[in-house]
Amino acid sequence: MEKIKPRTLSGFMELRPAEQMLFEQMVATLKETYSLYGFTPLDTPLIEASEVLLAKGGGETEKQIYRFTKGDADLSLRFDLTVPLARYVAQHAGELTFPFRRFQIGKVYRGERAQRGRFREFYQADIDIIGDEKLDIMNEAEIPSIIYRAFTKLGLRRFRIRVNNRKVLNGFFALLGLTEKAGDIMRTIDKLEKIGADKVCELLLELGVTAEQAKQITDFISVSGDSASVLAALDAYRGQNEIFDLGADELATVIRHMKDFGVPDECFAVDLTIARGLDYYTGTVYETVMLDHPEIGSICSGGRYDNLAEYYTDRKLPGVGISIGLTRLFFVLGDQKMLNPAFPAAPADVMILPMTDSMTEAVSLATTLREAGIRTQLYCEKKKFKAKIGYADKLGVPFVIFLGEDEIANGTVSLKNMKSGEQISLPVGEVAAFVTDKLAGQKDLAVILDQ
Amino acid sequence: MEKIKPRTLSGFMELRPAEQMLFEQMVATLKETYSLYGFTPLDTPLIEASEVLLAKGGGETEKQIYRFTKGDADLSLRFDLTVPLARYVAQHAGELTFPFRRFQIGKVYRGERAQRGRFREFYQADIDIIGDEKLDIMNEAEIPSIIYRAFTKLGLRRFRIRVNNRKVLNGFFALLGLTEKAGDIMRTIDKLEKIGADKVCELLLELGVTAEQAKQITDFISVSGDSASVLAALDAYRGQNEIFDLGADELATVIRHMKDFGVPDECFAVDLTIARGLDYYTGTVYETVMLDHPEIGSICSGGRYDNLAEYYTDRKLPGVGISIGLTRLFFVLGDQKMLNPAFPAAPADVMILPMTDSMTEAVSLATTLREAGIRTQLYCEKKKFKAKIGYADKLGVPFVIFLGEDEIANGTVSLKNMKSGEQISLPVGEVAAFVTDKLAGQKDLAVILDQ
Repeated sequence: MEKIKPRTLSGFMELRPAEQMLFEQMVATLKETYSLYGFTPLDTPLIEASEVLLAKGGGETEKQIYRFTKGDADLSLRFDLTVPLARYVAQHAGELTFPFRRFQIGKVYRGERAQRGRFREFYQADIDIIGDEKLDIMNEAEIPSIIYRAFTKLGLRRFRIRVNNRKVLNGFFALLGLTEKAGDIMRTIDKLEKIGADKVCELLLELGVTAEQAKQITDFISVSGDSASVLAALDAYRGQNEIFDLGADELATVIRHMKDFGVPDECFAVDLTIARGLDYYTGTVYETVMLDHPEIGSICSGGRYDNLAEYYTDRKLPGVGISIGLTRLFFVLGDQKMLNPAFPAAPADVMILPMTDSMTEAVSLATTLREAGIRTQLYCEKKKFKAKIGYADKLGVPFVIFLGEDEIANGTVSLKNMKSGEQISLPVGEVAAFVTDKLAGQKDLAVILDQ
Repeated sequence: MEKIKPRTLSGFMELRPAEQMLFEQMVATLKETYSLYGFTPLDTPLIEASEVLLAKGGGETEKQIYRFTKGDADLSLRFDLTVPLARYVAQHAGELTFPFRRFQIGKVYRGERAQRGRFREFYQADIDIIGDEKLDIMNEAEIPSIIYRAFTKLGLRRFRIRVNNRKVLNGFFALLGLTEKAGDIMRTIDKLEKIGADKVCELLLELGVTAEQAKQITDFISVSGDSASVLAALDAYRGQNEIFDLGADELATVIRHMKDFGVPDECFAVDLTIARGLDYYTGTVYETVMLDHPEIGSICSGGRYDNLAEYYTDRKLPGVGISIGLTRLFFVLGDQKMLNPAFPAAPADVMILPMTDSMTEAVSLATTLREAGIRTQLYCEKKKFKAKIGYADKLGVPFVIFLGEDEIANGTVSLKNMKSGEQISLPVGEVAAFVTDKLAGQKDLAVILDQ
């Protein structure tokens, strides 16, 4: 029979078993963290009616969409988790309780040009808090603490959450009489880190900004120092524009509470250059950078928006949310050799190798260990001893149990620590407690090894 | 602005938050159970090249496939998790260690005719054990114990795993000189429960089976009683056909070890009528029925196959696996009112309602509770007391904490049990331990309530 070459599509990540264990742990850690903050899990279809998914229309994204027909239906694969959230909230608004806090971790699809580290199918891990008409600023202060806890729990140490407020920028541009150009200016200064101040200035002039205004803008966004200094610098501009003053107040509130929420000073900063390119952010905006890998860009971004679902409902639904591009983050961590090699990636904690024809005792021991919560594989194949132990070794299983005639007769097992090579004899009744104790240290191992 | 009506596609399940919590718990329980047996998680792309996914070609499924083009690429959404597994194992065979035990829980797509309880997007939860050239019969004995543990852990009580062996059937048909018709006959008797013995007889005659042979077949598959009786009845046919004898031996081995693996007698049965329609099963086959809802059909099926990946590789990869159609199962459980109403479906365990302008103490308490693993929501909106408590009530949050001037001055909190209505005052330092203790009982609540 002629064979079809087994392969995955370009731009579609597929992990080997050991890598997959780490990825699963990342997902589990995020789920656990989001849940601790009272977010409820959500799961929406991957396929939506194109009319619904593309209600907003236009934009760069539309060209990348996986869109197709099935029968009469014009369908599209979701390209983010925000549009489905907007659709979900508008559709079920009557049954939901606001503020509605949800997390969703799922795959999204964008037919981008294939290149290293860019994926066409990738996981996003999103949280959003949606209010009905109003949403308190405190929600914007809580979000960075969730980012902080999530990354810390994953093992990341050297990262910083950068915070800004679009009202501060909009108010400042209004001060300069540049309100109509505010969107274009923000998209330009958002590129500061990538293209540098001179190029930003050049682009600003192209937008019809005067040289004087361009200088004022670049001076403004270049204010640096700790959060207190930046906030103090903002005070100099107060009293001229309401939006600016409101934004400065919001920023101060968010920063003050980040400390209450336990985010250490070194893990956050006010950064006036951050605008986020997307039009719909209206207040606080966030980016998160790895301090040793600024070239990677933001690994967790988001912000406050005033109207989540305007394409579906007249109801005003303001919200705040963030998104982690998990697939790309995982790729980057692997690339930077930051995935913890000590993380237990074996499919089992214990492998039982029966050395007798009767399997009864081995099955019974496997059942006991599983009931104690120990991941146990019973090796059933009829192979030579060397092949059996080689199998356990290849899988990286930490403990192997031999069960032969002597052991069964004595009510003991021979237990080998595969790492140290040490082999001991244990009464069969003590195996579960012994292994549980030895594994206890593993539970705290993080996926990411950072410094 | 004209609004687009927010909606999901017909045949696509989307759950409300409380239901989603139960679904997530089902998934988590299956993951945990599969992991305890040494299966490693796998995740493959939802989109594959059509040439790869449809390598086997033909069949009923092909018409249902979501197939489309993107640029030059002919793409399809996966319609099960078995074909992607075959592709994965063939593609990465050199890097995998055999027997390869993997589980995968993910969405698959079939454009079936929309009807109540049938879904076009649905979760499958699969486990498979893949051997290299050989795979011991013990693996076939272990699988039912995993089914048993998974369903038991989910809370299902009244179910039975039915086991048969295709070699027994094939051998028996060979005895009757009906080898060439074996496939057709099996597909026919597989329908016994749905259409009854008379109709099966009729269909067998249409296949060109003689009346005498049809009677022998229906007599054979009608053997009933406990497992031991059925196995004993098989002994009467021994010694005439090698395949039959081998199948009878395998069936006896599987049954004997199911007891060792801790599956109670009432939860399994030998059932000679089970053939499974799919051609690729070659040994043990499984079905699982809910005893009080036979009309639902099998909720977990699978079996032994001899050649997983023949369309991709010359390597012979026998395996055994089962699949649970999770979305349909969840629908059925809801429909039968078998989802546990006591299962904690609230997004948080505790809601903190700050009653002062300063949020510092409330934030600090929220941080403490979260660090103790308690899912805590800090209510931030400036609303009247009644609206705040009404919010917690609607979400079903079991504990609400009031933090007012007095409490803060005294270093206490007022904690209300929302179910009993009881309200107590507690030193702030004792809240975490108190709530943890109260929640302890919830951890053992199962998703399914069966009798």
